[in-house]
Amino acid sequence: MALIVEKTTTGREYKVKDMHQADFGRLELELAEVEMPGLMSCRVEFGPSQPFKGARITGSLHMTIQTAVLIETLTALGAEVRWCSCNIFSTQDHAAAAIARDSAAVFAWKGETLQEYWWCTERALDWGPGGGPDLIIDDGGDATLLIHEGVKAEEDFEKSGKVPDPSSTDNAEFQIVLSIIRDGLKTDPKRYHKMKQRLVGVSEETTTGVKRLYQMQANGTLLFPAINVNDSVTKSKFDNLYGCRHSLPDGLMRATDVMIAGKVAVVCGYGDVGKGCAAAMKQAGARVIVTEIDPICALQALMEGLQVLTLEDVVSEADIFVTTTGNKDIIMVHHMRKMKNNAIVCNIGHFDNEIDMHGLETYPGVKRITIKPQTDRWVFPDTKSGIIILAEGRLMNLGCATGHPSFVMSCSFTNQVIAQLELWKEKSTGKYEKKVYVLPKHLDEKVAALHLGKLGAKLTILTKDQADYIRIPVEGPYKPAHYRY
Amino acid sequence: MALIVEKTTTGREYKVKDMHQADFGRLELELAEVEMPGLMSCRVEFGPSQPFKGARITGSLHMTIQTAVLIETLTALGAEVRWCSCNIFSTQDHAAAAIARDSAAVFAWKGETLQEYWWCTERALDWGPGGGPDLIIDDGGDATLLIHEGVKAEEDFEKSGKVPDPSSTDNAEFQIVLSIIRDGLKTDPKRYHKMKQRLVGVSEETTTGVKRLYQMQANGTLLFPAINVNDSVTKSKFDNLYGCRHSLPDGLMRATDVMIAGKVAVVCGYGDVGKGCAAAMKQAGARVIVTEIDPICALQALMEGLQVLTLEDVVSEADIFVTTTGNKDIIMVHHMRKMKNNAIVCNIGHFDNEIDMHGLETYPGVKRITIKPQTDRWVFPDTKSGIIILAEGRLMNLGCATGHPSFVMSCSFTNQVIAQLELWKEKSTGKYEKKVYVLPKHLDEKVAALHLGKLGAKLTILTKDQADYIRIPVEGPYKPAHYRY
Amino acid sequence: MALIVEKTTTGREYKVKDMHQADFGRLELELAEVEMPGLMSCRVEFGPSQPFKGARITGSLHMTIQTAVLIETLTALGAEVRWCSCNIFSTQDHAAAAIARDSAAVFAWKGETLQEYWWCTERALDWGPGGGPDLIIDDGGDATLLIHEGVKAEEDFEKSGKVPDPSSTDNAEFQIVLSIIRDGLKTDPKRYHKMKQRLVGVSEETTTGVKRLYQMQANGTLLFPAINVNDSVTKSKFDNLYGCRHSLPDGLMRATDVMIAGKVAVVCGYGDVGKGCAAAMKQAGARVIVTEIDPICALQALMEGLQVLTLEDVVSEADIFVTTTGNKDIIMVHHMRKMKNNAIVCNIGHFDNEIDMHGLETYPGVKRITIKPQTDRWVFPDTKSGIIILAEGRLMNLGCATGHPSFVMSCSFTNQVIAQLELWKEKSTGKYEKKVYVLPKHLDEKVAALHLGKLGAKLTILTKDQADYIRIPVEGPYKPAHYRY
Amino acid sequence: MALIVEKTTTGREYKVKDMHQADFGRLELELAEVEMPGLMSCRVEFGPSQPFKGARITGSLHMTIQTAVLIETLTALGAEVRWCSCNIFSTQDHAAAAIARDSAAVFAWKGETLQEYWWCTERALDWGPGGGPDLIIDDGGDATLLIHEGVKAEEDFEKSGKVPDPSSTDNAEFQIVLSIIRDGLKTDPKRYHKMKQRLVGVSEETTTGVKRLYQMQANGTLLFPAINVNDSVTKSKFDNLYGCRHSLPDGLMRATDVMIAGKVAVVCGYGDVGKGCAAAMKQAGARVIVTEIDPICALQALMEGLQVLTLEDVVSEADIFVTTTGNKDIIMVHHMRKMKNNAIVCNIGHFDNEIDMHGLETYPGVKRITIKPQTDRWVFPDTKSGIIILAEGRLMNLGCATGHPSFVMSCSFTNQVIAQLELWKEKSTGKYEKKVYVLPKHLDEKVAALHLGKLGAKLTILTKDQADYIRIPVEGPYKPAHYRY
Repeated sequence: MALIVEKTTTGREYKVKDMHQADFGRLELELAEVEMPGLMSCRVEFGPSQPFKGARITGSLHMTIQTAVLIETLTALGAEVRWCSCNIFSTQDHAAAAIARDSAAVFAWKGETLQEYWWCTERALDWGPGGGPDLIIDDGGDATLLIHEGVKAEEDFEKSGKVPDPSSTDNAEFQIVLSIIRDGLKTDPKRYHKMKQRLVGVSEETTTGVKRLYQMQANGTLLFPAINVNDSVTKSKFDNLYGCRHSLPDGLMRATDVMIAGKVAVVCGYGDVGKGCAAAMKQAGARVIVTEIDPICALQALMEGLQVLTLEDVVSEADIFVTTTGNKDIIMVHHMRKMKNNAIVCNIGHFDNEIDMHGLETYPGVKRITIKPQTDRWVFPDTKSGIIILAEGRLMNLGCATGHPSFVMSCSFTNQVIAQLELWKEKSTGKYEKKVYVLPKHLDEKVAALHLGKLGAKLTILTKDQADYIRIPVEGPYKPAHYRY
Repeated sequence: MALIVEKTTTGREYKVKDMHQADFGRLELELAEVEMPGLMSCRVEFGPSQPFKGARITGSLHMTIQTAVLIETLTALGAEVRWCSCNIFSTQDHAAAAIARDSAAVFAWKGETLQEYWWCTERALDWGPGGGPDLIIDDGGDATLLIHEGVKAEEDFEKSGKVPDPSSTDNAEFQIVLSIIRDGLKTDPKRYHKMKQRLVGVSEETTTGVKRLYQMQANGTLLFPAINVNDSVTKSKFDNLYGCRHSLPDGLMRATDVMIAGKVAVVCGYGDVGKGCAAAMKQAGARVIVTEIDPICALQALMEGLQVLTLEDVVSEADIFVTTTGNKDIIMVHHMRKMKNNAIVCNIGHFDNEIDMHGLETYPGVKRITIKPQTDRWVFPDTKSGIIILAEGRLMNLGCATGHPSFVMSCSFTNQVIAQLELWKEKSTGKYEKKVYVLPKHLDEKVAALHLGKLGAKLTILTKDQADYIRIPVEGPYKPAHYRY
Repeated sequence: MALIVEKTTTGREYKVKDMHQADFGRLELELAEVEMPGLMSCRVEFGPSQPFKGARITGSLHMTIQTAVLIETLTALGAEVRWCSCNIFSTQDHAAAAIARDSAAVFAWKGETLQEYWWCTERALDWGPGGGPDLIIDDGGDATLLIHEGVKAEEDFEKSGKVPDPSSTDNAEFQIVLSIIRDGLKTDPKRYHKMKQRLVGVSEETTTGVKRLYQMQANGTLLFPAINVNDSVTKSKFDNLYGCRHSLPDGLMRATDVMIAGKVAVVCGYGDVGKGCAAAMKQAGARVIVTEIDPICALQALMEGLQVLTLEDVVSEADIFVTTTGNKDIIMVHHMRKMKNNAIVCNIGHFDNEIDMHGLETYPGVKRITIKPQTDRWVFPDTKSGIIILAEGRLMNLGCATGHPSFVMSCSFTNQVIAQLELWKEKSTGKYEKKVYVLPKHLDEKVAALHLGKLGAKLTILTKDQADYIRIPVEGPYKPAHYRY
Repeated sequence: MALIVEKTTTGREYKVKDMHQADFGRLELELAEVEMPGLMSCRVEFGPSQPFKGARITGSLHMTIQTAVLIETLTALGAEVRWCSCNIFSTQDHAAAAIARDSAAVFAWKGETLQEYWWCTERALDWGPGGGPDLIIDDGGDATLLIHEGVKAEEDFEKSGKVPDPSSTDNAEFQIVLSIIRDGLKTDPKRYHKMKQRLVGVSEETTTGVKRLYQMQANGTLLFPAINVNDSVTKSKFDNLYGCRHSLPDGLMRATDVMIAGKVAVVCGYGDVGKGCAAAMKQAGARVIVTEIDPICALQALMEGLQVLTLEDVVSEADIFVTTTGNKDIIMVHHMRKMKNNAIVCNIGHFDNEIDMHGLETYPGVKRITIKPQTDRWVFPDTKSGIIILAEGRLMNLGCATGHPSFVMSCSFTNQVIAQLELWKEKSTGKYEKKVYVLPKHLDEKVAALHLGKLGAKLTILTKDQADYIRIPVEGPYKPAHYRY
């Protein structure tokens, strides 16, 4: 696509695949609203007081129907919003169109190149000459990364006149990041400093991004306050677990129509995502084998009747391989060569480097046959045996299906709204330093409570006497901070 | 679509949606072959001897990728094939295109009108002046029905000169059937008699069709031998059960992206299909309520921890309703009016009359909003509350997803191949009378055996001594006829 | 125990372990009555008309609490009853005591020798000089066998004066049977003929006994009508499946307290019993491996995510071995030698010859350490490794726990009552020949219906129109005979 | 029992039910050792260096077979041990006998009165004139409580000469505690001060005890360092969850033989224990309803397909009620009156006050019928309807069955050994203050690792490169402190 920003009749910027899909997006958005009681409750509770009046929010988070409901919750609370996706395949084009037409500046489409991806990220951060956003909602930390790298480069440039050199790295994606910053330096050598200055804080959605934040905190390089939304119980124990339990089989079915029952599925990693994936595969009738580095998680897998082995032990007899680790180099090309014909290999962890896509692409004589978008068969020249790679090694639930369903994303995104409200409310109080915070437990419990009615649940209320007996307030929080759920 | 037969360069007739999808169909066909070991074994075992040499086979069965592998197995064994779908929504257009281009005469596309549907059925049965097919593969019995109704009409016409009167019925679909027969009488008053005369027999795929056959047998009106493939164990206890366990959630997810976990799902009927559906919903984290008329099936549901109630008891508190009964009038419009906003209503039984679509369509003031093809929101004027109807009340797994997966269909379709081989081999021996037969148990066991290797299973072999002890042959069959599995 | 018949104050014969346990037995009996709605309904429906007035019923069936409720249902309907157990370990002594004191002649205790076992069987069949029982309730067919062998021996004796020679067989148990018959011949050479003459029929409880009956029918040697209760759906698909799903883990826990989660369990056989066992182990968190001879059952196991291998493949890595086959020589001593230290080996099929107890007992240098009754550790001299054998290879759920729970036995036993009523009602009509019959489907459905209310279920009622549509009566039966559930 | 201390031939004190059961206990102990790889590894790793040389350890923890293996691990590492149970019903008398005879001073039997219970606790703490133990292993905190109350009373007595007045409380159990302390004051007014002085620390096993410790820490009244073993992941997420998943059905079956399938089970509380219980009931085929005060746990229950309601909503339709809350007054007598006849009511939380036993016992006209020890039917006078109470409202898995199985207790108890080693090693370093500590994560991971081999698991090893990428050491710990597993 030509990277030219378009404008709506009202003058709002956007770049999406096809504006004609806006009506379809709107219909699905309306369905999703019914499934997202947490977000809709926020609109009812906070909408009237317009707490985000004057706030500019930039989001870098999968531009799906669910995210669309989040964006319109933010705007319903008074915010101005610019958005990009945090994954080249995760955008739902009808969702992007509906939001671009009706509510916010969107720069996202399904199937971006890496170049396009970072252009979109830059657009979402670019609020014009007055600096960047007040608040960021980040997923994986790419928006945060760009600002941090930008600030660093500007400092170097100021000190030494040096500009970033893309050829200094052989990571193709980081080369693009450096190019963008380098080019930016030419037009405005204080661009990222201005952003940093304006920024009140970021709320981060996912494990990978959170890890980056804690590292920066540890290194003392974090430039603004951050709220770790990922580790809200109602996020990590819900969306990571129940979301993946839903969307892994969904992605497998849409991409390959494969029968899961009777198959051998290898789940690499048994964290929250891995637990959801293993449960899904087991329930669908697969025999599940888990690989783990952590003996505690391994023992949990065993207690559920799963086998725990190494990838080497099972590589040639399994049918489905799923990486969920958040680490890299999990399934290498030498593993893939030993797999059964048409073994399915996919990633639902975070980055595409869980699978050795580079090794596969550069394997001598390998042949790629695209069955349909995001479903490729790669054939090895020697064995004539093929493997099926989903979503080019990127998040298969977003690449091959529609990601997590609305209800569980309502939990995650209600945490986001609350985190953003908190950052914005405390913007001048100094409550939040340049550190990483988690939301207090009573807010976590509130998020859960907002989702019970939709499912017909009724809570038991403690008597005062009972509450005193276990020394907690009647209205909660009900658990100590270290409680694991 | 204009109902004009097209021809391939080799002169084979067809009518499909888009011939450009043939390459895509071929790629998916090749993937499916790896998942259909039963059919591929038939090619290896029987292909060299070309047992179907000279046989004309007409199929009326969902024109999917899996069916494509079946068709090419039939042609690999020497048959000539003409095909139509047995459901207006179940065709996969790329599968139809690949077969039409490469292997057989196909008349099928996704989203036929009823008029188009019966035109396709007629085309599939029309082998030219020399009469109809030698063999029929039927699903639901529509091809069989057309011949029986045609023969009856021709007899009436011969006796009394009367032609069928479409206005004699208010069943819209049957009106079309009568029109077709009436029009046929004009050009050839012996058309269906010639078909009957040539026909060696039919093998029927599904419960509904089998019921019709047994009725005709009971009434003495069955015109040719029939093999009941549905009641092979490797069909009814596999495709009905495990197939639906797979394809119900698949259809729900593709059509609505709804989170199943936490929801209340009502499964109407707890036969093989209902068992698969209830298992799928339970495993996905729904709370499942079953409705049943049969106390034995009801008690089975209870033993699995499911609640058994009537539809009236739960209609206003459930989120997902699935009919699996094979009966009619299960969910009526008066039920739908009481449902929660955006309750999902769908059918995976057989015909669309399980759901009162007529009542819904004619409900005063009701408004239909098509979210996307096969997903409609119907809004009642008084409550402003909407319900989501999938696939217009027709089979949702075929209408909204891609039907059962290849592996389980390989079981069903290997039964079909074996049944067809049996009918053809015995065509002149008189072994099969105008009755309904099931396949002998050793063939049923053979079908299962052909599918074990793919899943890495190893069978235990009886010693002679053990076989004698339980008085069965070492090589099976292993169970008495009444065994229930 | 000294084999001397005792008498109650009212003159009824009995031989039980400890009459002081009668009160305890009565208390548990009263609890069980609440869990056995089918039997209690029979009392209400048939009690007033005393249909068994004048009937003598002999039972050879595990003398448990549940059986006690069956016996008192028979007596409540007017029968006189004599009872023995059909397994040396299955008697619950408090149940036996309560029945002996209050209701019927009982000859049974937990831990009989084989000699004692057959003495009890003989006592139960001995109704005095006027011949034997009118009706038999049999489980495994031992009472039926004794009569058939007795009649045969009497015929031989009459013809040739020859008496049975126990030394003609090396089956220790059959030696005892022959001794008993031989000794009987001395006192009354027409003893078994008289029994045969009086006998109206037998209803048989279980797979093994049913197999024997069909063989005798095939051979033309069956001496009286038999009703196959085992193949009522509400028996074989309930007690075999759900009963074992409950009582396998119960037996394992009571015998060994072993943690099932995390273990590898091998289930030999995947029929109804095997399906229940595999489900129980899987649900408790074990990894389950199935061995099978039948490809259909094997494929069913695979569809549930179970691994299907041979015993040889897994013998040295599994923790728990369960035989469920009804065949013999499943786990041999050479297998046991290769097992892990303290592997648990048990049988829930039928006879103790599923496990090679003879081979184990005679293995040179093997050492038996009795942990507690029915739990033995056998140590091999060479490896010093031990295995745990439950219930000496006999039914472990009855030997180590209390067998199937009341509710599911209520289904089975209501079938028994109905079968006995049917035989007795038709005793002089000639309806039943010397063949094996199953109960008609409407009675099977009735049994199920009697158990729904207790579980809070509500059935849906067909409209006349719906019933006509699927061509069944509104009131059932709802399924064709071949339906598999 | 007469409360007189007995002595072994070697002069070690004890008081157990029956010393003749020692051999049986030893046999089961040997079986358990094979199932407790963590403890056995400790013996191998630490035994040679005798780290507990000179240490006196008092334990107050269910005197079961598993605890016996713990005790003998402590003695194998050089400790002297005195032991009592922490529950009047939880002792396994054969385990107590084996340990009393062979290894340590035991004061415990199944079915103690409260008076006896506290006498045993006092005995276990009494190491003679030189003061008490060096270390305590506590479960529920009773040993810790006695010392704290004792010290407080001695201080009061020293200040004011006042002795504790049992009549000052109407809690029957606390009256006994006060009596014991009062009587102790007469013989030695510094008894508990001496204990306190000697004590290096306590390691606490369970949630309830841990709560008490954190309260004392918060109040500043904690007298010595404490290690919270309960919140090791390998304890709370294993024994609480998987242990109860195993032992709840075990207790139900042994106590009542009730069929769980088809029943409605209400689980009060959905913490770790409740999660295990709900899973067990669901897997056994019950329909499960959860009651919860915490919206997060409630939402977790919903995601598993469980219904969340209040006790009032379901009290009259459920069959089985299980309390798991750790709170009091969960099921009151007014609830019990509304239950179905023979509803089962039991507690697996901590104290018997989860169930209103006092209200039940004092209900006018109520009648208690003891079916067998720990299984009572209580009949209400007005309705004639009875309910079944297990273990008099105390922990039903220990009262009616044998508690958690060895394997999972090996995890818990290996944490105990490691905690004790840590306290003892650091006894003079000042590392541990009068606070509550949890074990460091690498020890938690070590405990898990010790249990993998037994289950045939193989861990994946991180490469250095991968470890660096996610910024953890190759050898762990693998997760941040807040990780929830």
